[in-house]
Amino acid sequence: MMDHVEVVKGSQGAAEKSKQAPNQQEIVSFLALGGLGEFGMNCLLIQSPIARVLLDCGVMFPSPEHLGVDAITPDFSVLGEQPLDALLLTHGHEDHIGSIQHLLRWSAERGWPTPLRVIGSRFTLALVRRRLEEARLLSSVRLELLQAGEIMELGDLQIEAVRVHHSVPDALAFAIDTPIGKIIHTGDWRIDSRPLLGDSTDLPRFGEIGSEGVRALFSDSTNVDVEGFSVSEAVVAEHLSDVLDLAPARVFVTLFSSNIARMQSLLRAAHATHRKVVLYGMSMKQNFAVARELGYITLPSPDILLDEAQMRQLPQDELVVLCGGSQGEPSSTLARIAFGDHADFRVCASDTLVFSSRSIPGNEKRIARVVDAFHRQGARVVLPTERRVHTTGHACAEEQRLLIGLLRPKLFVPVHGDFRQLTRHAELARSMGVEQTYCFSNGELLSLGEDEVKLARHHEPSHNYTIGKLFRGADDELLRQRRHLAHNGCVCVAIRVNRSGELLAEPRIRDFALVIEPNGLMAGLQRLIRSSVKDYDGPWEEEALSEHLRGEIRRYFSKQIDRRPVVLPLVLLE
Amino acid sequence: MMDHVEVVKGSQGAAEKSKQAPNQQEIVSFLALGGLGEFGMNCLLIQSPIARVLLDCGVMFPSPEHLGVDAITPDFSVLGEQPLDALLLTHGHEDHIGSIQHLLRWSAERGWPTPLRVIGSRFTLALVRRRLEEARLLSSVRLELLQAGEIMELGDLQIEAVRVHHSVPDALAFAIDTPIGKIIHTGDWRIDSRPLLGDSTDLPRFGEIGSEGVRALFSDSTNVDVEGFSVSEAVVAEHLSDVLDLAPARVFVTLFSSNIARMQSLLRAAHATHRKVVLYGMSMKQNFAVARELGYITLPSPDILLDEAQMRQLPQDELVVLCGGSQGEPSSTLARIAFGDHADFRVCASDTLVFSSRSIPGNEKRIARVVDAFHRQGARVVLPTERRVHTTGHACAEEQRLLIGLLRPKLFVPVHGDFRQLTRHAELARSMGVEQTYCFSNGELLSLGEDEVKLARHHEPSHNYTIGKLFRGADDELLRQRRHLAHNGCVCVAIRVNRSGELLAEPRIRDFALVIEPNGLMAGLQRLIRSSVKDYDGPWEEEALSEHLRGEIRRYFSKQIDRRPVVLPLVLLE
Repeated sequence: MMDHVEVVKGSQGAAEKSKQAPNQQEIVSFLALGGLGEFGMNCLLIQSPIARVLLDCGVMFPSPEHLGVDAITPDFSVLGEQPLDALLLTHGHEDHIGSIQHLLRWSAERGWPTPLRVIGSRFTLALVRRRLEEARLLSSVRLELLQAGEIMELGDLQIEAVRVHHSVPDALAFAIDTPIGKIIHTGDWRIDSRPLLGDSTDLPRFGEIGSEGVRALFSDSTNVDVEGFSVSEAVVAEHLSDVLDLAPARVFVTLFSSNIARMQSLLRAAHATHRKVVLYGMSMKQNFAVARELGYITLPSPDILLDEAQMRQLPQDELVVLCGGSQGEPSSTLARIAFGDHADFRVCASDTLVFSSRSIPGNEKRIARVVDAFHRQGARVVLPTERRVHTTGHACAEEQRLLIGLLRPKLFVPVHGDFRQLTRHAELARSMGVEQTYCFSNGELLSLGEDEVKLARHHEPSHNYTIGKLFRGADDELLRQRRHLAHNGCVCVAIRVNRSGELLAEPRIRDFALVIEPNGLMAGLQRLIRSSVKDYDGPWEEEALSEHLRGEIRRYFSKQIDRRPVVLPLVLLE
Repeated sequence: MMDHVEVVKGSQGAAEKSKQAPNQQEIVSFLALGGLGEFGMNCLLIQSPIARVLLDCGVMFPSPEHLGVDAITPDFSVLGEQPLDALLLTHGHEDHIGSIQHLLRWSAERGWPTPLRVIGSRFTLALVRRRLEEARLLSSVRLELLQAGEIMELGDLQIEAVRVHHSVPDALAFAIDTPIGKIIHTGDWRIDSRPLLGDSTDLPRFGEIGSEGVRALFSDSTNVDVEGFSVSEAVVAEHLSDVLDLAPARVFVTLFSSNIARMQSLLRAAHATHRKVVLYGMSMKQNFAVARELGYITLPSPDILLDEAQMRQLPQDELVVLCGGSQGEPSSTLARIAFGDHADFRVCASDTLVFSSRSIPGNEKRIARVVDAFHRQGARVVLPTERRVHTTGHACAEEQRLLIGLLRPKLFVPVHGDFRQLTRHAELARSMGVEQTYCFSNGELLSLGEDEVKLARHHEPSHNYTIGKLFRGADDELLRQRRHLAHNGCVCVAIRVNRSGELLAEPRIRDFALVIEPNGLMAGLQRLIRSSVKDYDGPWEEEALSEHLRGEIRRYFSKQIDRRPVVLPLVLLE
């Protein structure tokens, strides 16, 4: 029960140590712009005496409460004025590369030199290239390939790419030699001894690095609550084959469109069960195309893939439809199929739907709605909680222990998770004999000397909310206003009045999303406006009269219907 | 994999049977107003040749997408014109009694005779009495006590109350003798052989009823996905004692305010570990008071309860704070404590927070936010997924099998669950040898003869949305408008113009929750309005000109910021 208290003690102990006046020349500092205490938006600034590198630049997907927000990106202003030397990418998932175009726009505004060096693996760079071509920003970067096993020099940093296994091809950890010792950042990783795509995590190399001595390890905390080892993709492929084999007719499979290994598993399972595969969904098709072009996906038979027209010729029991929408997104292929809104499909009782994906927290209810819609139409739904039709891309507790055991860092910093997960990952590291652990949070500056550790609040952590074309279209206050608007509706009123307080025209009123069946509410409002203007004894200025009207109208609705709609009065004073 | 297909076959077989012209005099029909394919709002009309009884009248709690809705209640209009003979209540949870006041208002509008007979157990009626006193509707009902083991006649129905165990005291199942045989409705139930409060489910009586023959069983499907037996409250009480014993200082425990048995467990655990208890939250205190007054709660020592003032005198390690907010509700005691917004408490590192409750689907993310806030402040959080600090109130699969085995109904109708759960519960019943099962849904009319079964769509299922004082303040279209408003913000515009198309004043513009940093957006809008009025060549009527302006302004924002705010133009035409 005392675990957390120990974390705090550890932190205090370190703070005292830092008073031993570290040598300013031998400090490497870390500033998290995102990814700590939250899901997504992974972004970490690493600053040595000479080099300034950003490690990953991810996006966070908006929740339903982020009303109208298209993407949440780091607040790059905490990077300050000094340009970056490079952006280093662990792998090609959106929560690690999705904010690159925002970073580039932001650095262009500041007049930072271009091109920015963007360093990553082959598959990662292929995704970045596509993204930046679409955003017409490819000329702002120089893409530099760093393959597993290779080392790149960047100022006083030697950056070694170490192969890790994850649910996207070509994922890397970085082992960075710095003036204060070796720093390891795992990126997202797990161990799969029987990967279907690419090789597994390079444990031998991690073993060697551990023997050389590790100053600090930053590691992925996602699955710290899950005991044991993650399940191999090979097992998932077997279970998918079983499901396809037993399904009486058509099978829909939904998965993350970035899960290239799963696409490969499904192609194999379809081939083994004499089915053909059709892909639905833009990003599914795009990711598939990139992976196939680069040779990460191999077709088990040349005719396994069908297009929509070929699909219509095929008997139902020979068909597998891969589609996006595993999170129940309302506009996705899957949701449109579920709710009878898709041109090509009507759910029928012989259908099977397979969720080859997990639920991202916050999406449970809309996923359940899709599941229920299939059930209602008599279809069978296979969930990952019932059969092994999905496996995680992140290390479970036993894998985390194994890596910590291999690397034996002096300092352990859990990353990539909410505070609960970070706290537990720190506890896990201490149980493995690591003496110093830090539950680092967004906006904090962690400064390491060879022995010293210093932790300081640097910035209040913040986000940028993209709305439509506006990179910074909203802030928390605007979202608060939107919530108020959404819960109460709005009323706008225009009056024409002269300085004697005479109304020169009938007040015009429009309400929107207020209530149905207002039953005389608006007639009462007309009377209220007339009497409010008549009784008004403030200054004859438009703004003052507006404020008066706003207050009166709000009180009126509060009394009549116990609601506080947004009131927008427009006064034309003559 | 074929399970669901069998359900459909069963249903078709029954539909054929119904063509054997049943005797109209011997039909009992069932119409679900809610609770099927959704969580909450349990409400079932039972109609015999003579009697018309509503079984339960629950509310559904709004989700975040139900913007501004206070409560979701059944659409009582499907009850038609004929008055009810009685309302029969299984137990006192909100999802079974929460819409009674709405039913009473609705029936008053229709001029149905009062008082309505409301039949239930002692604790259930105590909660109903309090609710109707507050709503000033107590005179509209006659509360009639029906205790476990008693039988009440209602027209051609003999209604026997059978004791079941649930997480609220005094829960009942009903065994109803009808002209077509015995119908059992379980309400919410489970088996607890070591209940801390009240007796367990009356299995011997269910055994006797089974021997007498059961025409149809309607049973709670909530936990069909959970194999085995539910855990006893006695086990939870032991684990709570452990947690209180090991906690270094203050302990916050959050639970459902209706979970009277859990309050009793916590009082005992606190007593055993030499702690005192303070209650926070209005409905927690109210339910506690009712339960204590009726003798359902006994204090293990007279001084175990403290008020807020006494609490301040107590050492931290002797305190247990019971508080509402187990679902992360933003205005709850717990959320306010978590986010530093509560007058009496500041979270500190020695605190322990215990979730003695489950997550209701849809609330996962806001619960996680509360958990994370405690973690961030160094506190320890104990979740029911880690320790047995909560148990369900609903039967798990093995209990469901046991009851079906005791009752051996001719027809099984799963209720209380989403379609997935209903489907699986029907499968479970068939695996127990029940020949006929029906996955009944809201709005359907299920008509039973002695042998025949007929299923017909009766009404499109619908809801009423309560907003403020308006019992029917919103519909799905209004909620769609609110979502649009919330995702796009709004702009209102007033212009004064004459019939020659001259603007007689500067256009007035107000936007709300549109974007931050609009950078010239509004100056551009002024110009747009001027040119739109100038170019307008439609009829000089306010509505037509408004429509024209609305279209132009929408196109403007769509082009400028890729958003479609709600545009409310007010035209003063002279």
